[in-house]
Amino acid sequence: MTTPRKLQVGVAGLGRMGKRHALNFHQNVPRASLVAVSSPDAAERQWAAENLAPHGVAVYASYDDMLAHDGLEAVCVASATSVHAEQAIKAIGKGKHVLCEKPLGTTVEISQTVVDAASKRPDLKVMCGFSRRFDASYRDAHAKMQQGLIGRPAVLRSQTCDVLDPSGFFVAYAQFSGGIFVDCSIHDIDLALWFFDEEKSKVRSVHAVGITAVEPDLQKHNDRDNAVGTVEFYDGRIAYLYASRMMAAGQEDSTEIIGTEGKLTVNILPAENHVRIYQPGGIRQELPQTYWDRFKAAFTTEAIEFTESVLEDKPVPIKLTSAVSAVKIGAALQESMVSGSKIWFDKDGNRTERAQL
Amino acid sequence: MTTPRKLQVGVAGLGRMGKRHALNFHQNVPRASLVAVSSPDAAERQWAAENLAPHGVAVYASYDDMLAHDGLEAVCVASATSVHAEQAIKAIGKGKHVLCEKPLGTTVEISQTVVDAASKRPDLKVMCGFSRRFDASYRDAHAKMQQGLIGRPAVLRSQTCDVLDPSGFFVAYAQFSGGIFVDCSIHDIDLALWFFDEEKSKVRSVHAVGITAVEPDLQKHNDRDNAVGTVEFYDGRIAYLYASRMMAAGQEDSTEIIGTEGKLTVNILPAENHVRIYQPGGIRQELPQTYWDRFKAAFTTEAIEFTESVLEDKPVPIKLTSAVSAVKIGAALQESMVSGSKIWFDKDGNRTERAQL
Amino acid sequence: MTTPRKLQVGVAGLGRMGKRHALNFHQNVPRASLVAVSSPDAAERQWAAENLAPHGVAVYASYDDMLAHDGLEAVCVASATSVHAEQAIKAIGKGKHVLCEKPLGTTVEISQTVVDAASKRPDLKVMCGFSRRFDASYRDAHAKMQQGLIGRPAVLRSQTCDVLDPSGFFVAYAQFSGGIFVDCSIHDIDLALWFFDEEKSKVRSVHAVGITAVEPDLQKHNDRDNAVGTVEFYDGRIAYLYASRMMAAGQEDSTEIIGTEGKLTVNILPAENHVRIYQPGGIRQELPQTYWDRFKAAFTTEAIEFTESVLEDKPVPIKLTSAVSAVKIGAALQESMVSGSKIWFDKDGNRTERAQL
Amino acid sequence: MTTPRKLQVGVAGLGRMGKRHALNFHQNVPRASLVAVSSPDAAERQWAAENLAPHGVAVYASYDDMLAHDGLEAVCVASATSVHAEQAIKAIGKGKHVLCEKPLGTTVEISQTVVDAASKRPDLKVMCGFSRRFDASYRDAHAKMQQGLIGRPAVLRSQTCDVLDPSGFFVAYAQFSGGIFVDCSIHDIDLALWFFDEEKSKVRSVHAVGITAVEPDLQKHNDRDNAVGTVEFYDGRIAYLYASRMMAAGQEDSTEIIGTEGKLTVNILPAENHVRIYQPGGIRQELPQTYWDRFKAAFTTEAIEFTESVLEDKPVPIKLTSAVSAVKIGAALQESMVSGSKIWFDKDGNRTERAQL
Repeated sequence: MTTPRKLQVGVAGLGRMGKRHALNFHQNVPRASLVAVSSPDAAERQWAAENLAPHGVAVYASYDDMLAHDGLEAVCVASATSVHAEQAIKAIGKGKHVLCEKPLGTTVEISQTVVDAASKRPDLKVMCGFSRRFDASYRDAHAKMQQGLIGRPAVLRSQTCDVLDPSGFFVAYAQFSGGIFVDCSIHDIDLALWFFDEEKSKVRSVHAVGITAVEPDLQKHNDRDNAVGTVEFYDGRIAYLYASRMMAAGQEDSTEIIGTEGKLTVNILPAENHVRIYQPGGIRQELPQTYWDRFKAAFTTEAIEFTESVLEDKPVPIKLTSAVSAVKIGAALQESMVSGSKIWFDKDGNRTERAQL
Repeated sequence: MTTPRKLQVGVAGLGRMGKRHALNFHQNVPRASLVAVSSPDAAERQWAAENLAPHGVAVYASYDDMLAHDGLEAVCVASATSVHAEQAIKAIGKGKHVLCEKPLGTTVEISQTVVDAASKRPDLKVMCGFSRRFDASYRDAHAKMQQGLIGRPAVLRSQTCDVLDPSGFFVAYAQFSGGIFVDCSIHDIDLALWFFDEEKSKVRSVHAVGITAVEPDLQKHNDRDNAVGTVEFYDGRIAYLYASRMMAAGQEDSTEIIGTEGKLTVNILPAENHVRIYQPGGIRQELPQTYWDRFKAAFTTEAIEFTESVLEDKPVPIKLTSAVSAVKIGAALQESMVSGSKIWFDKDGNRTERAQL
Repeated sequence: MTTPRKLQVGVAGLGRMGKRHALNFHQNVPRASLVAVSSPDAAERQWAAENLAPHGVAVYASYDDMLAHDGLEAVCVASATSVHAEQAIKAIGKGKHVLCEKPLGTTVEISQTVVDAASKRPDLKVMCGFSRRFDASYRDAHAKMQQGLIGRPAVLRSQTCDVLDPSGFFVAYAQFSGGIFVDCSIHDIDLALWFFDEEKSKVRSVHAVGITAVEPDLQKHNDRDNAVGTVEFYDGRIAYLYASRMMAAGQEDSTEIIGTEGKLTVNILPAENHVRIYQPGGIRQELPQTYWDRFKAAFTTEAIEFTESVLEDKPVPIKLTSAVSAVKIGAALQESMVSGSKIWFDKDGNRTERAQL
Repeated sequence: MTTPRKLQVGVAGLGRMGKRHALNFHQNVPRASLVAVSSPDAAERQWAAENLAPHGVAVYASYDDMLAHDGLEAVCVASATSVHAEQAIKAIGKGKHVLCEKPLGTTVEISQTVVDAASKRPDLKVMCGFSRRFDASYRDAHAKMQQGLIGRPAVLRSQTCDVLDPSGFFVAYAQFSGGIFVDCSIHDIDLALWFFDEEKSKVRSVHAVGITAVEPDLQKHNDRDNAVGTVEFYDGRIAYLYASRMMAAGQEDSTEIIGTEGKLTVNILPAENHVRIYQPGGIRQELPQTYWDRFKAAFTTEAIEFTESVLEDKPVPIKLTSAVSAVKIGAALQESMVSGSKIWFDKDGNRTERAQL
């Protein structure tokens, strides 16, 4: 009788998301072993020395060194967006399976390089982690849609709205994030591709507007703190999106999928838990404050299913090309927001000067 | 072509509820004309002199004088509970139709005197106003129950909970109210009689406990500020009730009707209106602050339907004997709360020493 | 002592909305008397002969004849949109006060003719009835915004979504309605003007897309059954709108006002009443099925306040010019939806070829 | 560098709850290793042979044999209620730490034997698993209460309501469960002890009524399918409880804690997840169907914290004596329900004939 083997996983990057991914693989994924982490940042490595090293996790300053860790089989890329693609490609080059945080890159071109690298190694599992696809509520909604509960889905409204952070964090972050549509709305775009079936729904036009209501300095990075985008599809569907960095009450990620015979909503009235507080002034429900608070269980499911796809050699749950499609739409929305111009595509996905039928 | 005649109505009592009933008949009942009001209180009459007299309403200090008002056809008794029965009986004696605020009296005996008086004048419409029976939500729930949506109703939970009033009002009020079960829970008891069908459901036992969490002075009037009662019926049903004068957030009158195949709730999560307020700390909904705020539309429907029953000589919507049954149960609960003893009834409604099968 | 005089009101048009306005003035407005109605349609007049004439209401086939009714002081124009302006102007010409159903007309030019006519008779009260401004929840939200609860409002999301009607009604209706943005979204646009303060917020651009998901025949009238519009304002605000004729569950008119320090929502999770139904499959809440079901109390308030503004010679609650601004935006959105082009305005409200700073 | 040691755990019983506990310790508790399980039932062992043995878990037919498993440190007793106490005491006798499913036994006497055994081995961690104390929402509510958000808690309403199961399962189960108050309401009683502070709140009286609305055969085991109980405390507090086996929509475990300055509710309107379904008929939310569905995360927290208390030699999160207090109240309620009599206690917890002040 032998204990089944566990996937040997390394996590690249130990910033906010990196720490979470590391702990997630360490504590919540029974079939994986976190064996190594890497970060160029000394403070982050210190954190790992205190929290992970005692459990047998090797801590590297160099990503390349971590890739050379003996027995390493898979890498979770959770570093800054600007190095996602480079690190993913290196890992593929070394024959490692890759779970890469979204987005693959801030442009279509960069994102595509990961797809190209992966296509040369069909033996490896390479996935971009769109966490909402692993959330129990989104999955339930998707299953209900597929069962026909709402007829044909025609309109999708979705928003990714962060709690107001007056520290100025978002201004610094905007330099590298790709902008609010690539950083936030990418999730909503991915949902549209998932619910509308990206094989059939081709984008016809995108249009966006944005404002800086609380962070005027975002303008210098061509970014905004509130933005509304519209995506029109050739098969008669619309997705419309709202992203914000200005929510007073907490994280508000809500979605409606409106079909010809019904509608499904996810998180239309957010709540942190099952508690309601009755005081003078009314009844109050608290909200999750961060994306992680809302989706931490989804990140666990994501890691478990990625691990399983490697160990059992099954297809990864999300096709890698989907991540490129999402960036393409997000980047076009960002451009439309900045330029003020509507952007058109033909049915092959090429940009055109004017409307096509 | 003639304008159809309107019912000539007088309102007795111009306290909190009296003012509301007067304005209600004046403004919201197209087929009624408020022609007279009465109050022994000079300040209340002053209010009427300013607000009603300019619209042609006669203001009387004496109830008897109002009864003699030329053309008066019907009286709405909205005075202190202690004179409800006396005034109702006088009006019946003068051949007036009567809409009497609940309860008819604080004891079964007093309440019964009104029924006896009414039974001698079958030509008159006499009704005790249990306002919830006119509320759109309770009516919807009752209709759905009758359609069979929840199978056989077996358990009813209902509460009448007033907003905390630190002014001491409830202590003074307790002298004459009959106690929290007769004053508040009477509504919930009436709902049990309505939903369980009082012709079939006979009370087997009642039991109650109560505390004074915020108003210890209520003890001197044998009253409490929070009380829980249980009513057991011979046909295998239970009603359990909660009454309170201590709600921080506002008026909370909620009901559940639990059947063998489903459940209906009314107002399980109260809200003043459709607004939600998102601020740091969460999402908040305000509550109605008073019974009137919650049920004002029901009082209008009540007045409209009472008026219609008179003008068209139709049965009143609620049988008068029902009001006696409700007081009987409420008074027994109050007694049980004070004595600590469970109270038993036989199937004919007589009190017994011990449990009957 | 005399009974105060009542405003003598006539209602033009007895279609779906006309009947409701007539009954509303007849039953729910204490200071008004419905004295006359008119309709060119024999069936509608028959309804009035049965339901209103017995109460002393004169029934006319000709609008002009109704205007000549002895003692008539005010007209509620509730006829087809295509004759709103003409009838309103005629009434003004005869010295009658006017409450006109929205919109004044389907184009800016037509709408402006009413404003021009009214401006020559400053003694008359002329108002376009945007019912949501009289809804208790919207008023509560507006008051809370003005108290500063949400800081500066920056983004408004609002939708007017009708229940799916498979009868084909909406196709026939589209010939005269002005299109989905003029017919439905006009309410949401009016809310944006109200919450953002139209004196300060000038439109910079509008953009819209639409589809026919259930009623392809709408295309022939240049209309759609689902449409999304974006309105950008010069002072850094955005309104984004959704209109639909395809809601499975009922009428869904929801609004969010998102400010720099908080958010207010109105009707984010619609419910018909306070009842919840628990059955296998879950907990269910029913929805209002029509605009009237949701807003009937607002229509009553509207009629009461219009009546009061006449009787007491006070300003009407909504400035008439506001109705022209709303049509201007609605018509531009409709045009953008059909043409596919974004439409720009300069700060004086004139259309321009390209973006202005 | 060494991997920290893991607690070696065995699970006794592989029925419905036993399987869940076994998988829970196996998959979700990073610091524990499931090393053994036992069941006298061949089918259950077969399940373990397929699902646990391949991961290195030893499967025993005999509980005693499992106790002798080499290296075993702790036992989770998840067998039938009737053997809880016996198995717990045996494990203590062998020097094993014990996490015992609730209740310790169906009577006070039996429950006390476990406490007595544990008191002789203060070096061992022995805990009765009241799962709600580990639920994030209940913990949040308790923390808010302790922060003073609701003043002094005075009334607690709590219910444990299972989904209707027409298979007859509950009749068979009633033979050994101790009855609905010991089996279901024990959780609500434990909450009362937790929120009211059992050191200070001593029971003064209990009273209960019950019916068999859907399962008349429960009568032969002195049980009911719907029951309402009231618990009165000497320090002026009330807990009132509802237990049912008849919920149509799903598991409904809700609690209100009502204080002198506010109220907290947990799960007042249950929902399975964040999805809402809009269809003709309204908006619907699905419910968890079982206790496990609702509380599975709490069971994981319970196992993690029990493990931690052993490994770090910290007090267990719930005092063992609390489990005896809860059974005492539950058994008295069950007796009151069957006999019809109210039961009184003096301040030392002894039963008395009549009310004590």
